[in-house]
Amino acid sequence: WADRQEVNGTATLRHCLKWMERLGWIGNFDRAASGVEAPSAGREFADSEIYKLLEALAWESARSGDEWVERTFQDVSARVVAAQQPDGYLNTRFGGPGQQPRYSDLEWGHELYCAGHLIQAAVARARTHGVDAFVAAALRLADHICDTFGPGGIERIDGHPEIEPALAELFRVTGNRRYLDQARLFVERRGTGTLNAGETGPEYFQDDVRVREADVLRGHAVRALYLASGAVDVAVEDGDHDLLSAVETQWRNTVAHRTYLTGGMGSRHEGESFGDDFELPSDRAYSETCAGVASIMLSHRLLLAEGGAQYADLIERTLFNVVATSPDASGTSFFYVNPLQRNSPGIEAMVDEPSPRAASSQRAPWFDVSCCPTNVARTVASLSGYIATKSTAGVQLQQYAACALDTVLPDGERVRLSVNTDYPWSGDIAVTVEADAGREWTLSLRVPSWARGRATLDTGMGDQPVLGATAEVSSRFRSGDVVRLSLPIEPRITLPDPRIDALRNSVAVEAGPLVLCAESVDLAPGTHLRSLSIPAGASPSREEGASRWPPCRPKIRTRHGPTVLPLPSHR
Amino acid sequence: WADRQEVNGTATLRHCLKWMERLGWIGNFDRAASGVEAPSAGREFADSEIYKLLEALAWESARSGDEWVERTFQDVSARVVAAQQPDGYLNTRFGGPGQQPRYSDLEWGHELYCAGHLIQAAVARARTHGVDAFVAAALRLADHICDTFGPGGIERIDGHPEIEPALAELFRVTGNRRYLDQARLFVERRGTGTLNAGETGPEYFQDDVRVREADVLRGHAVRALYLASGAVDVAVEDGDHDLLSAVETQWRNTVAHRTYLTGGMGSRHEGESFGDDFELPSDRAYSETCAGVASIMLSHRLLLAEGGAQYADLIERTLFNVVATSPDASGTSFFYVNPLQRNSPGIEAMVDEPSPRAASSQRAPWFDVSCCPTNVARTVASLSGYIATKSTAGVQLQQYAACALDTVLPDGERVRLSVNTDYPWSGDIAVTVEADAGREWTLSLRVPSWARGRATLDTGMGDQPVLGATAEVSSRFRSGDVVRLSLPIEPRITLPDPRIDALRNSVAVEAGPLVLCAESVDLAPGTHLRSLSIPAGASPSREEGASRWPPCRPKIRTRHGPTVLPLPSHR
Repeated sequence: WADRQEVNGTATLRHCLKWMERLGWIGNFDRAASGVEAPSAGREFADSEIYKLLEALAWESARSGDEWVERTFQDVSARVVAAQQPDGYLNTRFGGPGQQPRYSDLEWGHELYCAGHLIQAAVARARTHGVDAFVAAALRLADHICDTFGPGGIERIDGHPEIEPALAELFRVTGNRRYLDQARLFVERRGTGTLNAGETGPEYFQDDVRVREADVLRGHAVRALYLASGAVDVAVEDGDHDLLSAVETQWRNTVAHRTYLTGGMGSRHEGESFGDDFELPSDRAYSETCAGVASIMLSHRLLLAEGGAQYADLIERTLFNVVATSPDASGTSFFYVNPLQRNSPGIEAMVDEPSPRAASSQRAPWFDVSCCPTNVARTVASLSGYIATKSTAGVQLQQYAACALDTVLPDGERVRLSVNTDYPWSGDIAVTVEADAGREWTLSLRVPSWARGRATLDTGMGDQPVLGATAEVSSRFRSGDVVRLSLPIEPRITLPDPRIDALRNSVAVEAGPLVLCAESVDLAPGTHLRSLSIPAGASPSREEGASRWPPCRPKIRTRHGPTVLPLPSHR
Repeated sequence: WADRQEVNGTATLRHCLKWMERLGWIGNFDRAASGVEAPSAGREFADSEIYKLLEALAWESARSGDEWVERTFQDVSARVVAAQQPDGYLNTRFGGPGQQPRYSDLEWGHELYCAGHLIQAAVARARTHGVDAFVAAALRLADHICDTFGPGGIERIDGHPEIEPALAELFRVTGNRRYLDQARLFVERRGTGTLNAGETGPEYFQDDVRVREADVLRGHAVRALYLASGAVDVAVEDGDHDLLSAVETQWRNTVAHRTYLTGGMGSRHEGESFGDDFELPSDRAYSETCAGVASIMLSHRLLLAEGGAQYADLIERTLFNVVATSPDASGTSFFYVNPLQRNSPGIEAMVDEPSPRAASSQRAPWFDVSCCPTNVARTVASLSGYIATKSTAGVQLQQYAACALDTVLPDGERVRLSVNTDYPWSGDIAVTVEADAGREWTLSLRVPSWARGRATLDTGMGDQPVLGATAEVSSRFRSGDVVRLSLPIEPRITLPDPRIDALRNSVAVEAGPLVLCAESVDLAPGTHLRSLSIPAGASPSREEGASRWPPCRPKIRTRHGPTVLPLPSHR
């Protein structure tokens, strides 16, 4: 992940900035600030891309301290702030000269959606830097929204959720309950039919059933996941167990019946939406990158609220197989949709023009609807936030990556750890304690579901089998103590749920958290992927290779030829 | 089919009229005639539904001579004609006070598409009745279109093909070459990028490749099939063998790789479009009813142009399994999409409001986009046109239904036949000659592909096996001569192409031209359709039942229970 963060912090951020300057999406703010009547560039949600880039810049500035990143945050955020109206309203597409009135198209206008992303960027900035002019602008915008959409105001919602988690997060940063109350209003209003659904139907917007009454995620996947994230935030802050429990049920049913092996969500191209239960075709998987990001947001919130290794498991699966697979190695070309199988080569992306988002299944530098690149950027820049959690009892390592960790437990006990691992290429994770403990505390290490029953832990007395979903070591640790977790990452065959029609008689090959991928280029010339079949009872094995990457290439015997070498799908 | 035509001529036509009056779609014409500024009812292609109803009324009036049908044709067509502008233009949505200018949105405005359906209705009227005020109005509209879109005019096309076959048909009725030339211009312009494709991409409109250069149908299925129909018309009239050959190739590749067992075309909900080769999921089959109608239009034209039992085979398959399955028994509720499998019950249609076209997979009385009911109506009313073809050599029976046939061969030889059959419930077809022949001629009977090698013919000397795709009897027939064809309609198992991922390890049960359907209501309580499996080597058999319908119910042994009884999917 460190390499990924480096590429993200340099190449991806510059790439996004370059495209949005060139297409005039940032220029929209200059035009709005000037008050001149002129057409807006890009789609109605273009503002949000700038905000997601600002969020990525905010996280990245704190992570790397890079000067260009910090300066770019300041420059771009200043242009945004300049476009704010005196009453706090801020959107380059509505309410200006020659434009549609504010809030005249809540279904499709994305005004509150854009505002939500601005607020999320401000939350990132406040957490990493403190209040500055940009954060102050976000507060004015949030106040304006509370004034406008509070009780007695416009008692409706935005077609695209996002304002809900944003306002709840802003409450966490500021302590101002008004924002939390407004977030709750938006969550509670959804499902009461305040949107004119039109041909898409109310399910598309999750306006068909109230959040606390739904038992599965449905409709547009990103919308559904952002909304559920906001509902968890509200439920946690208010101790609303019913609401939290409803979202947990939705998560559970969605993961059990409507989620790809990769963690991908939203199987339908039509409406970018969840399909019916078990409607999970590989070739037409939509599995939008942004739905992966949103799924991680939701699972992270449920993990913090409830604990439960299943949430961290899904985060891991989705990070490796949906989010990390989106950008190419250079960080400048992205998958928008993430099919699990390609029957035709697809259309080469355009280099100089935005590409259609889903017409091809190829990576593209930029899209007409370009939500994914900036969403990947803000996620990768803030990855360190997903590594570990803490409690009075101690520290829980949730994700494995080489890193240093320095934190203070609620009672003031300081914990410093370093993690050494080549995960996921190796299943060996060594955690070294870097400071003497003042008291006994518990180091908890997640054992992913695929490793359960086969993991071992070594605390200096040899490998011991680990039972359950976490390996726990309670000790008055001394600096230099090492805890080693070994996870079995040998490639394995995974069988699908027999209720998935599209996967009848199919298998997947996985290794550790990775879902592997057979690629045409690895096959004998003239061999079609479709012709691959695996003899009953065949099992994959590792081929130790000399190449730097990947250190082990799983191989498997097929009926067709001697071996194929499935590679992780993000190469 | 006679029962179907009766239901269509009474219930369906009244049903369509009632809905379109109620929703104000016919009223649009009164408003346009009055010149008053007022909003249009319905979608931008609502005019076309009135035209398709007029076409159905025209065919039905000739078929049944029903007084209400004739009077309704006259009433509704008079309201249409009253809305025509002095220069021949006729559309209730554009060019009037407060409306967008004419031809300002060729991509989505559907002006020429609507005009095409008006002209098709006029062609039906001219063929069954001769020139009247409505036909005259169509000629003025066609002249206006030629003036406006001819060389030096607007050298573009409509986003939705339909004007192409309509103008070519109008040429056939009138002999005025101008209409054929204009049809050719529209066909030749497509694929040259004159449409602003936007997010759908040019393939959606078939504007990606020129018709004569394409090798498969792609994009929006109805658009693709109407366009190909028009291209055949132009090719045939002009002797353009290259163009005809290109469409034949497209038909062949599309049927081989992109067509459901039912004849359904257009697998994707997204864009109502053809998918990639072998992308044929059962549960998410779009298989729009109108694409079935359009496929029959295309196959019928290729049959007339080239002969070839494969075209009549596909017409039969599509008529029975897509078009006939759309309306319910009462003729007042319709499938818009025709999935081959349902994993969830779907949403009950609204009785008093138009339903979303594809959100549920249930029949509905009317839709927001209600192209299918009127398309079914005009097809069923004109079914007799598909029964037989003729040539100098004699008469070719292409479809089997109880009917009387009275025609004159090109040299003046009169042929009168009666066909007696209970097809498709029985495979026995008896053709009785009703008039002495003046010369030897050939009666040709199509043997459907599923019957080939197993059909027998009896010309009075006992059953003889039939080889090939047609059974031919050449004779100087005498009145009372009977020719009997026996087709084996025993239920049979059909295996899918192994390249169709969605059908891996699945089979279909067919009987004659019918694709059968296992329905939950026929299973033991609590049995889920998904759990049905058939032992290797099991074969279906007939259960002779006492009930009037269907006379034989195929049964098959499954692993789950003793038997299930698949029924034709249009019950």
